[in-house]
Amino acid sequence: MERTLNRETIKCLGEKVKVCGWVQTIRSHGKIVFIDLRDRSGILQVVCSSNLVEGIKEEYALAIEGTVQERPKEMINPKLETGIAELKAEKVEVLAEALALPFDLKKLNLSLPKLLDFRPLTLRNEKIQAIFKIQEQVMESFRNTLKNLGFTEFQSPMIVPSNAEGGAQVFHIDYYDYDAYLAQSPQLYKQIMVGGFERAFTITHVFRAEPSVTTRHISEYTSLDAEMGFISSWEDLLDVCEIITRDILSGIQKNCQKELKIFDATVPQVDKNIPRLKMREVQKIIFDRTGKDNRNEPDLEPEDEKEICKFAKEKHGSELVFVTHYPTKKRPFYTYPDPEDPEYTLSFDLLCRGLEIVTGGQRIHEYKKLLENIKKWKNNPKDFSFYLQTFKYGMPPEGGFAFGLERIVKQILGLENIREACVFPRDMERIDQRLSLLQPRTKTSTLAKDKSKKKKS
Amino acid sequence: MERTLNRETIKCLGEKVKVCGWVQTIRSHGKIVFIDLRDRSGILQVVCSSNLVEGIKEEYALAIEGTVQERPKEMINPKLETGIAELKAEKVEVLAEALALPFDLKKLNLSLPKLLDFRPLTLRNEKIQAIFKIQEQVMESFRNTLKNLGFTEFQSPMIVPSNAEGGAQVFHIDYYDYDAYLAQSPQLYKQIMVGGFERAFTITHVFRAEPSVTTRHISEYTSLDAEMGFISSWEDLLDVCEIITRDILSGIQKNCQKELKIFDATVPQVDKNIPRLKMREVQKIIFDRTGKDNRNEPDLEPEDEKEICKFAKEKHGSELVFVTHYPTKKRPFYTYPDPEDPEYTLSFDLLCRGLEIVTGGQRIHEYKKLLENIKKWKNNPKDFSFYLQTFKYGMPPEGGFAFGLERIVKQILGLENIREACVFPRDMERIDQRLSLLQPRTKTSTLAKDKSKKKKS
Repeated sequence: MERTLNRETIKCLGEKVKVCGWVQTIRSHGKIVFIDLRDRSGILQVVCSSNLVEGIKEEYALAIEGTVQERPKEMINPKLETGIAELKAEKVEVLAEALALPFDLKKLNLSLPKLLDFRPLTLRNEKIQAIFKIQEQVMESFRNTLKNLGFTEFQSPMIVPSNAEGGAQVFHIDYYDYDAYLAQSPQLYKQIMVGGFERAFTITHVFRAEPSVTTRHISEYTSLDAEMGFISSWEDLLDVCEIITRDILSGIQKNCQKELKIFDATVPQVDKNIPRLKMREVQKIIFDRTGKDNRNEPDLEPEDEKEICKFAKEKHGSELVFVTHYPTKKRPFYTYPDPEDPEYTLSFDLLCRGLEIVTGGQRIHEYKKLLENIKKWKNNPKDFSFYLQTFKYGMPPEGGFAFGLERIVKQILGLENIREACVFPRDMERIDQRLSLLQPRTKTSTLAKDKSKKKKS
Repeated sequence: MERTLNRETIKCLGEKVKVCGWVQTIRSHGKIVFIDLRDRSGILQVVCSSNLVEGIKEEYALAIEGTVQERPKEMINPKLETGIAELKAEKVEVLAEALALPFDLKKLNLSLPKLLDFRPLTLRNEKIQAIFKIQEQVMESFRNTLKNLGFTEFQSPMIVPSNAEGGAQVFHIDYYDYDAYLAQSPQLYKQIMVGGFERAFTITHVFRAEPSVTTRHISEYTSLDAEMGFISSWEDLLDVCEIITRDILSGIQKNCQKELKIFDATVPQVDKNIPRLKMREVQKIIFDRTGKDNRNEPDLEPEDEKEICKFAKEKHGSELVFVTHYPTKKRPFYTYPDPEDPEYTLSFDLLCRGLEIVTGGQRIHEYKKLLENIKKWKNNPKDFSFYLQTFKYGMPPEGGFAFGLERIVKQILGLENIREACVFPRDMERIDQRLSLLQPRTKTSTLAKDKSKKKKS
């Protein structure tokens, strides 16, 4: 017999069907046993005579044949999509047994480390699944909007020849007889793509060897990157970024009502334009509001990002705010300096509910200027000869931005830690299992490698 | 003035517009100069008086304002989408200059290494772009079909804690104070996802430290992976794989006519079902056809794959063929043995025009059996404790498959080398630039690392 999804059973009242799923709960009432059967479409109540389900426990995988019957009015469960029906089981097949669960999978009262230690199991909880349904929706909206805007999707490599951008720490790879690194961003590659396709995007993984543990950093994260040429002004970038942001938020609003409800979460509203403030203005506003004087700092601190979001909400009714014009010194070599004030750049971050979720800006497209900056930033132009081809042979004004996938999800659902928004998070302390359970690398090899790296760079 | 795309100009006959793009060709006829301007939408002929375009050469990026005029009948260019019109330039702005090109970008008569050395530049060639438009279409069809079939998209990690699957060579990463590796497949993670979501897929990068150079292997490639639970038989997998294959091929047929034409390529037809042959049958057929006796070999050689595809075409009129039931010894520990003949597995490859483009199979879902096999394959169960949770707590019969993105594109377009189908290919000899231009790792550090690895494994 063909399988019917739980959700579809309500269209089969009175019919014989076969359903498959996991035992979410099993409640015995003497000779009658009730099972809440979970499949990818939802939950269905199954009524069995006890002899059919002897020994069956939570999380067993079952195939059940039976008849779908309408529930009496007083037994309808409005919380279930299938609440008007139940299955009267006639045959129960155990597809897989389950050991006794180490904790209550429905309540899931676990510390974060425990939650992640048991990720394969906790992934079966409805609330955890909701996180990754939202994540999926974010990716879909990002892709759809960009495709509609004429962007070409491409695959950016993760193995790169050098620590090209500087700044963040990179992971070293033993690449055959050579040194290579994990990409800290697809930046150079998306720019190269603009040289060919004008508009390009990628959903890719980037790697940051951050030697610290925070609630907003992981060592491998998903970056939604876009880049576009022939911009008439760097504000084109803000405009496109705003369109995508709107589409991501409205996609969730439209398609993830169930998931939002589970978290009692609301999607940030973008009714009007997202306010755009220069970093120095932001610092002044914060000084005026709090007395905290960071007006000469080269960047915003996490506390500043929270405070300016509060301001934007109070003053502009917006849970999102663009902060622009970060100092030239603090941005990578390819960032376009503001012609009106070259100490600052045509760059921006988009903050959402207190956290940066997008970073972007116009890039230097003039070959000579770019070459100069590579040197000024203490890089070796030889390491960039591949990338520089793009600019040698005619590159129009261009720029782009990158959304942090896990950060968007974290901010929308109000998760405390970014690790919750990543299905298999990697950090200083964990790759699936806790690293402390493993043996560290031997000191000798580390030292030898550091030495060899210095020789080459 | 707002920019108009080249393709849109034919809707603006008689109007003033501004177009932007690169100079594809520039032909001087004395006082009149013709420019073929290329943007992401196509080519437009621009007529300029010579004084407007002094010094302008191929690949300059320009913004041109002017009036769109209908071409006289005899001047219509049927090869161009915009061939009924041309732009009479009134103002030409140079957005970026280009150095003299190192080769003819239109003819592109280059060896493969040269083509890749100059990837940022060769990416501007129409034929090269066609490859990546096809690639984009493959990803889109794969995703759309799976979403329609109830699969959840997820992000699989690339940093993994151990060489879990065995077999292919892996790349080592210095991960903080620990050893880690680049994922050689998302296999274990997609199975874990099935435990939660029943059906899951990912488009991810996988890494193979293949110490050899062939026309069908690269060190980093894009894998289109899917996995599904509650299968009623392993043949469900073949059925779903066939649906996806059809959709990928028909997507290209429908949306990539221009690209196919450039390569004079045709899409393999899947009118009837794709033939399904056991590996031992295949070997017998090859023996009967060629006299070559590989009947006791544990796997097919590249030559065998070509021969059986020839057979499938002649006998079944199909350019695709499933080869099933590979020997248990040659497949990873998680592959399901055929209950009727446990020396062979419920596994399959899909061959297209002589090359494997998909590999898949049913997996062992029974916890004890899986644990046994992990030991039998000389792995340490401790390394799999995270993964094994999925099976400890009830995993239904399941399986999946992986499409090699670059291989599909290679086979459809008839490319000679898989490197052509990867925008930024990595192999033993290249990461963007040729590795031979770089200094190798020092022997000391390599030796020290090898030692340390041995200690731990």
